[in-house]
Amino acid sequence: MMPGMQSVVLISGGLDSTVALHEAAQRGTVVLGLSFHYGSKHNDCELPCAAWQCQQLGVPHQVVRLDFINDLFRSDLLQSGGAIPAGHYEDVSMRRTVVPFRNGIMLAIAAGIAESRDAQALVIAAHGGDHAIYPDCRESFLGPMAEAIRAGTYAGIQVCRPFVQSRKQELVRIGQALGVDFRHTWSCYQGGSRHCGRCGTCVERHEAFLLAGVADPTEYAAEVGT
Amino acid sequence: MMPGMQSVVLISGGLDSTVALHEAAQRGTVVLGLSFHYGSKHNDCELPCAAWQCQQLGVPHQVVRLDFINDLFRSDLLQSGGAIPAGHYEDVSMRRTVVPFRNGIMLAIAAGIAESRDAQALVIAAHGGDHAIYPDCRESFLGPMAEAIRAGTYAGIQVCRPFVQSRKQELVRIGQALGVDFRHTWSCYQGGSRHCGRCGTCVERHEAFLLAGVADPTEYAAEVGT
Repeated sequence: MMPGMQSVVLISGGLDSTVALHEAAQRGTVVLGLSFHYGSKHNDCELPCAAWQCQQLGVPHQVVRLDFINDLFRSDLLQSGGAIPAGHYEDVSMRRTVVPFRNGIMLAIAAGIAESRDAQALVIAAHGGDHAIYPDCRESFLGPMAEAIRAGTYAGIQVCRPFVQSRKQELVRIGQALGVDFRHTWSCYQGGSRHCGRCGTCVERHEAFLLAGVADPTEYAAEVGT
Repeated sequence: MMPGMQSVVLISGGLDSTVALHEAAQRGTVVLGLSFHYGSKHNDCELPCAAWQCQQLGVPHQVVRLDFINDLFRSDLLQSGGAIPAGHYEDVSMRRTVVPFRNGIMLAIAAGIAESRDAQALVIAAHGGDHAIYPDCRESFLGPMAEAIRAGTYAGIQVCRPFVQSRKQELVRIGQALGVDFRHTWSCYQGGSRHCGRCGTCVERHEAFLLAGVADPTEYAAEVGT
């Protein structure tokens, strides 16, 4: 992103997009933190974190409701789907939690909102660790999607994907350096009042803190990975 | 589209997408006609046409509500926007009626629904006459968007754009040959009980019938183009 650019940042309230928000706010003007309520089991846990992080930075926050996803899409991440599998984030069982083309939908809506607000850039936090099971986190998707958004908007809106070559532990380190309060981020796919410690996203979150050498401030309901 | 493919067809209830629906139904199995209610001034006129056309063909029809577009997007096509300009469809004044990245949003959502239903293809009716003012109707957008959808879905969903090199009058001829009842299609951006005859889309619609040498069955409130 060029310095001074006005951007819309996709912010779920998870660890990755929270770091992306803080980094974008340091580099330029974030005109909007954009979240989606699409009926996942953990939306009601992560969206308050997204709002909190935006408020900390003085960034306007908008939640867009996408009720049709829970109604029409097939995914165990959704309230309409089956149970969240336990295990490692990269396990094939986690594939059942993929919401088909979710990043495409979120980026497309963000492009329309950015064009409506005269912003020049979008930021998405997809990172290297996501690639194994999520086709819409890979550069083979993000590259053409970015080109479609550039060509399909009058402003030629740019899609910034600062972490696409990074691992999650690097995001923890970047966030630590930026002073991110990780207690106000949510990863667990189960939802609930505490991180479960058993689903793939809890395992991945905890591992990232370990690998980054940063103390994990998360309170887990069970010892991670048990 | 390969013969026998299962497709989801974007159907607004306008002339172009109605012809695309009938053509796709002839070539393969249309598992869903997909429409969007996004708060345009003419949604309530065109969506019943979309439903009628699907019913004629025995194709399931689904309307997805995108209320956030009317709330958050800037366009005179929307109920939240200014008046629809009179004049020719290609006039620069019509640019105010563009809904930013609308085709990107609709294709992205369609991709998620298609993946959830094990369909292999999407069909969009964007045609050559749209290109002048709509960046998201051009092949420079559609090509990368199609690649993003192919790469971002497990099924490698294909985006078919059969009319991207055609003019609207050719669609009228194709529709005529397929026996499309054009009385059950809606173009006018104004909405209301009859086509206004004055907005760019009415002018373009009538011209297409004239150029195709097909009688225009549309009842206009005013002589077209006056």
